[in-house]
Amino acid sequence: MDPALESDVFARACTSRLVLQDVTGRWGALALGALHEGPARFNALRRRVDGVSEKMLAQTLQALERDGFVVRDVQGTIPPKVEYRLTPLGARLAEQLVALIELVEGSMGEVLAAQAAYDATRD
Amino acid sequence: MDPALESDVFARACTSRLVLQDVTGRWGALALGALHEGPARFNALRRRVDGVSEKMLAQTLQALERDGFVVRDVQGTIPPKVEYRLTPLGARLAEQLVALIELVEGSMGEVLAAQAAYDATRD
Repeated sequence: MDPALESDVFARACTSRLVLQDVTGRWGALALGALHEGPARFNALRRRVDGVSEKMLAQTLQALERDGFVVRDVQGTIPPKVEYRLTPLGARLAEQLVALIELVEGSMGEVLAAQAAYDATRD
Repeated sequence: MDPALESDVFARACTSRLVLQDVTGRWGALALGALHEGPARFNALRRRVDGVSEKMLAQTLQALERDGFVVRDVQGTIPPKVEYRLTPLGARLAEQLVALIELVEGSMGEVLAAQAAYDATRD
């Protein structure tokens, strides 16, 4: 990348917008959040990210691997053991993301009250 | 909300997962990021969030308003001036989100190198 160019997610053609979607998308955010708890095998991740299909989780992990956020670690045991873990860059992103997730989770009382008030004015 | 219950985005039926999607979704994240720069009118937001359609921006702002993150402020001028701004809760979320966006933008050199290396092993 030309270091003179700055990334800008607000520009529709900037690649960084796609990468932000990998990180914050429906399953990407939850996969990164789950891996923030530690390395995990595919099936453990699938249980943790409740509701994800096998196909969607595989696609999500592949996108995160391609972006350099996740490593697919094949251990030379028999049978081979495959584990997913965060790269240092992935860990930095996951940390920011988990802070955001925790803020959302901790705000749900306020959010539900706001939703009820909003819906009441629409009835 | 029953205060004894904890929100958990990893649980598929938890409302907090939907709210996380409002915050981090394709247009929600960019709308919150744009409003983090200050209150704005609809058309200014539409220019800032490059590529969003009128309909999608309206839906996005409505969801964020319902969640209590954004206020639609109608000023009693003639003609009325409508401005969108963050609530205190929305401002806290936007701050976390902008930190994540900046981390993504600042990592794009590393990400593009990782993508090129990944794609090279697939050729």
